[in-house]
Amino acid sequence: MKINSRQNFLVATLVGVLACAATIARAADPLPSWNDGQARQSIVAFVTKVTQPGSPDFVPPAERIATFDNDGTLWAEQPMYFQFFFALDRVKMLAPQHPEWKTKEPFASLLKGDMKSALAGGDRSLLEIVMATHAGMSTEEFDKIVKDWIATAKHPVTKRPYTEMVYQPMLEVLAYLRANGFKTFIVSGGGIEFMRPWVERVYGIPPEQVVGSSIKTKFEMRNGKPVLVRLPELNFIDDKEGKPVGIGQHIGRRPIAAFGNSDGDLQMLQYTAAGSGPRFCLYVHHTDAAREWAYDRKSHIGKLDKGLDEAAAKGWTVVDMKNDWKNIYPPERK
Amino acid sequence: MKINSRQNFLVATLVGVLACAATIARAADPLPSWNDGQARQSIVAFVTKVTQPGSPDFVPPAERIATFDNDGTLWAEQPMYFQFFFALDRVKMLAPQHPEWKTKEPFASLLKGDMKSALAGGDRSLLEIVMATHAGMSTEEFDKIVKDWIATAKHPVTKRPYTEMVYQPMLEVLAYLRANGFKTFIVSGGGIEFMRPWVERVYGIPPEQVVGSSIKTKFEMRNGKPVLVRLPELNFIDDKEGKPVGIGQHIGRRPIAAFGNSDGDLQMLQYTAAGSGPRFCLYVHHTDAAREWAYDRKSHIGKLDKGLDEAAAKGWTVVDMKNDWKNIYPPERK
Repeated sequence: MKINSRQNFLVATLVGVLACAATIARAADPLPSWNDGQARQSIVAFVTKVTQPGSPDFVPPAERIATFDNDGTLWAEQPMYFQFFFALDRVKMLAPQHPEWKTKEPFASLLKGDMKSALAGGDRSLLEIVMATHAGMSTEEFDKIVKDWIATAKHPVTKRPYTEMVYQPMLEVLAYLRANGFKTFIVSGGGIEFMRPWVERVYGIPPEQVVGSSIKTKFEMRNGKPVLVRLPELNFIDDKEGKPVGIGQHIGRRPIAAFGNSDGDLQMLQYTAAGSGPRFCLYVHHTDAAREWAYDRKSHIGKLDKGLDEAAAKGWTVVDMKNDWKNIYPPERK
Repeated sequence: MKINSRQNFLVATLVGVLACAATIARAADPLPSWNDGQARQSIVAFVTKVTQPGSPDFVPPAERIATFDNDGTLWAEQPMYFQFFFALDRVKMLAPQHPEWKTKEPFASLLKGDMKSALAGGDRSLLEIVMATHAGMSTEEFDKIVKDWIATAKHPVTKRPYTEMVYQPMLEVLAYLRANGFKTFIVSGGGIEFMRPWVERVYGIPPEQVVGSSIKTKFEMRNGKPVLVRLPELNFIDDKEGKPVGIGQHIGRRPIAAFGNSDGDLQMLQYTAAGSGPRFCLYVHHTDAAREWAYDRKSHIGKLDKGLDEAAAKGWTVVDMKNDWKNIYPPERK
């Protein structure tokens, strides 16, 4: 190919335009919902350090893996995990097809709205509820069920759609990391197939970058069409020690940055911190009773106790939601 | 932001330059190792169709998922799966630490070079060999073991490094798909942690886009450092019905294109073909006894029998290696 002077000029112009665009992007504040403080500064310092070519801390883009817990880290989790509200709504919807639930626990109590009795059986009750509401259909049918629910369901306290109870400052961190060559993953105790239908739209994270708890599936022909059928059998619990295991299975390399909010995320943060080279670990600390919820060491949901001690001992970033975040949720959609 | 006429001019120039670059890219042959024939034409026609904006067959980039079997599809698999050669070399290397293997099957026969007796116990013998050679260490130690082996081991017939027994025409397909916005995944019966250490360098596929068979791992502190330890316990067999299940777990959406070479890939191809919109399924048929190996319906390794019938019935692409491929392997490195 011959390059003439006209093309040379075009190439030079192109380079100029791109450089100009890069300058504009750099000038805009990537974290507008963060107050200037230690938490914000630590994020920016880490990203700057690992993306600076020639720096001893430079990390090649392929290794810029960042993992995020979901419940309590990317969206709220009070007064109950949102997936549990989904299960409750499913129980109510399916009840007409299950007349036996009127007298069978934990469903009988659930349908009467008596949550305490329903969950008296502990993990076994919970598992029964999950299997009754999450299994039996194909993965594609379940995808539609979740999409339909999340499009209309409202949180009992805020009356907002659950997908509007995501943390605006964390959306900014996700976008900031991706703009700097990071690949962002969810690593959550929540159901992998409960998250995949909406996280791409809401967080910009595609289904293949979601790690979560799962039930088993089976390849099967249904009406002549091959599908994956969801079985009422646990496959994997992606919590505590399970989080590094899930990371190993799905990602196959140690993240260089990890974000969580509870003791359930501690092993993921430990695993991340222990790699060689620069590492970043962050805990979201729920300190804002007015705008969100305030809870930590004694909470049943999102308990943050050992994690808080280890973060202090190891110098991990701890976000004080009340003081570090200008906004909690994105603006309401009209 | 106000856009002045100077900026307008720059934007117009930018658009022109990009269009010009696209034309140049299109002009170069993306598949130089493929003879012009039905197989090659079907690949180009599919990619053109799904990437044409405004076409009824257009597929958004996020949904352009392509899955590839590894053994026999991306690299050779004769006279034995290459991972088995790795296991044999490991048995020899570990033998001094296991004096009991001198009299214990299947190791005793293996160490005498008597493969037939060693494998007389079928799957159980194979499993014992795998667990003895693939478990007990951390994932990072295993990564290094595989990297060290693959850097030096040579194939018994060709005397070439195993990573040079990859199929040049398939490397071109991988690159061609990625240049057209596809995300390429491996979905293999082989061990996920046996592939991850080298497939990024050789195929351009990062660890997080590898799906394979696996053993369980456990989060553990070793010398004060958190690691994942490989346990001698099967976790998942990514073969036959397992392939769509593995795709569901790791990718979470139906691929639109799938590439295989054996009946072990049939369910993956069926699952791919059954989605809505344009779909592409391809079988590599080993027909070249001179340059590679010729085998299909009666082979113990890479048996292609039902798949060949279904491909004919459904109009899937079948590559005739002997006639469709100009080259089999990349040029030898000096």
